[in-house]
Amino acid sequence: MTDAAKTIIDYLIPLNNKQRNLIFYIDELLDFIEEFLQRDLANNRLIGQYGAEIIYQNISNKKKLTILTHCNTGSLATVGFGTALGVIRQLAANNVLQLVYFTETRPYNQGSRLTAYELVHDRIPHTMICDSMVGLLMRTQSIDAVIVGAVRVTANGDTANKIGTYQLAILAKHHEIPFYVAAPTTSIDLTKRTGNEIFIEQRPSSEMTTMKGINIAAEGKISMKNKFIYIYIFIILGVQVWNPAFDITPAQLITGIITEHGVFKSDELAEKLLSLQRSINSPLP
Amino acid sequence: MTDAAKTIIDYLIPLNNKQRNLIFYIDELLDFIEEFLQRDLANNRLIGQYGAEIIYQNISNKKKLTILTHCNTGSLATVGFGTALGVIRQLAANNVLQLVYFTETRPYNQGSRLTAYELVHDRIPHTMICDSMVGLLMRTQSIDAVIVGAVRVTANGDTANKIGTYQLAILAKHHEIPFYVAAPTTSIDLTKRTGNEIFIEQRPSSEMTTMKGINIAAEGKISMKNKFIYIYIFIILGVQVWNPAFDITPAQLITGIITEHGVFKSDELAEKLLSLQRSINSPLP
Repeated sequence: MTDAAKTIIDYLIPLNNKQRNLIFYIDELLDFIEEFLQRDLANNRLIGQYGAEIIYQNISNKKKLTILTHCNTGSLATVGFGTALGVIRQLAANNVLQLVYFTETRPYNQGSRLTAYELVHDRIPHTMICDSMVGLLMRTQSIDAVIVGAVRVTANGDTANKIGTYQLAILAKHHEIPFYVAAPTTSIDLTKRTGNEIFIEQRPSSEMTTMKGINIAAEGKISMKNKFIYIYIFIILGVQVWNPAFDITPAQLITGIITEHGVFKSDELAEKLLSLQRSINSPLP
Repeated sequence: MTDAAKTIIDYLIPLNNKQRNLIFYIDELLDFIEEFLQRDLANNRLIGQYGAEIIYQNISNKKKLTILTHCNTGSLATVGFGTALGVIRQLAANNVLQLVYFTETRPYNQGSRLTAYELVHDRIPHTMICDSMVGLLMRTQSIDAVIVGAVRVTANGDTANKIGTYQLAILAKHHEIPFYVAAPTTSIDLTKRTGNEIFIEQRPSSEMTTMKGINIAAEGKISMKNKFIYIYIFIILGVQVWNPAFDITPAQLITGIITEHGVFKSDELAEKLLSLQRSINSPLP
């Protein structure tokens, strides 16, 4: 979203610098935004096609696949088709999707609020699990692949994504399940070498302790007795929480990064993208 | 709880078989229950002492420890002191606890509702995390040990416990963090050889889709068009969910099982318990 806003702002500033009323450019601007959306949607559809192809190819012994995903990467988070959810939509369209499991994605429940809505709406066979159920799911329900989105991918293939992604990758490795990241090249930042250069935002504690404005965590009443003056002070204190928005999944836990230009292994990502940029002689996309 | 009820029922049946009015035994019964509770509390305190001792011993380079736990294993789930939370209470009492992290433990939030209350009440330094944050926590917050309770431990050391425990054990192994199970010997069932013999209960979907009676997951509206008679049928369908209550952690992921008779490795558990039984010439405890 930041990138999208930046692209539009970069487009507007030269116009504004001409010191003329922007109202004269309204049609031009709308055309630009329309083209921008169309390109984004086309890229999402390419990601869906490349992703569905590689996941289906690599699991040759099955007719239909069972996939696990995390957070929301569909039309409510991207444009129309989605990234990881776009791959799942494409598998469903190809009639090779048995079932998609998705996590509720605590604390902000992008899974249970957004992904649930999209899958029910699109009539894609689905089952929601809690983030705590991934281990048992992988051990007992024969998951063919995990596919997630990305907030940011660095040059070495490290991927920042919604909190919980990193442990999905570890659990996938433990159960020998392929783990894919679906991301447009606009999410790949070759100026950052590794995930260590990505700052992880802390979110407000209320995201964890309330839901729809209602308190869902225990509070505690503490009494403090002052030894000298013998009065009791009662303080209502809520529970202390830690609420990081994202985590970093190291490149070595990622089977492949699915972009609109194809699927890359993390160790070839930077080289191949730079070579693509040179071949079209401009920054991607 | 089932075991406790069974013990009391086993005590009552012979009395009842005498065909006399149980009212005459009310004092005897109350004494029995009181003794039963006292023994349970004493066992919990022993678990706390053995657990605090071994965890502190094995982490010799630190003055104060940071621990992670799951679900509720405190005075609200056991008697007075707790099992895993009893170990944490003992570490705090010994003044060697830096901080305890605990998961909210979706879907039924035993962490955020019960453990949160106990830790705030007891003024034990704590921080709550979502089940999705365990990976990042272990990677960044130098966790010294994970300690959880058990619903049932089988002869080989496999442990059934609240859903999410299994993946905590995998994540602990990945980050080389010791993983302990605290359980009274009444939870150890030597008649079951492995965790495969334990049935995993499925719980109602409403536990995942509602909280305090309020719907927290998206519903979807599906329109089905009948090709022949051109009518639209609208159906409101909720999201499909999978809600297993427990999972099984394989013995090889468990560093030690802390009981009121000491701490055992899984491969010595059955032998040592049987030898204890022989030495006191009766089933434990």
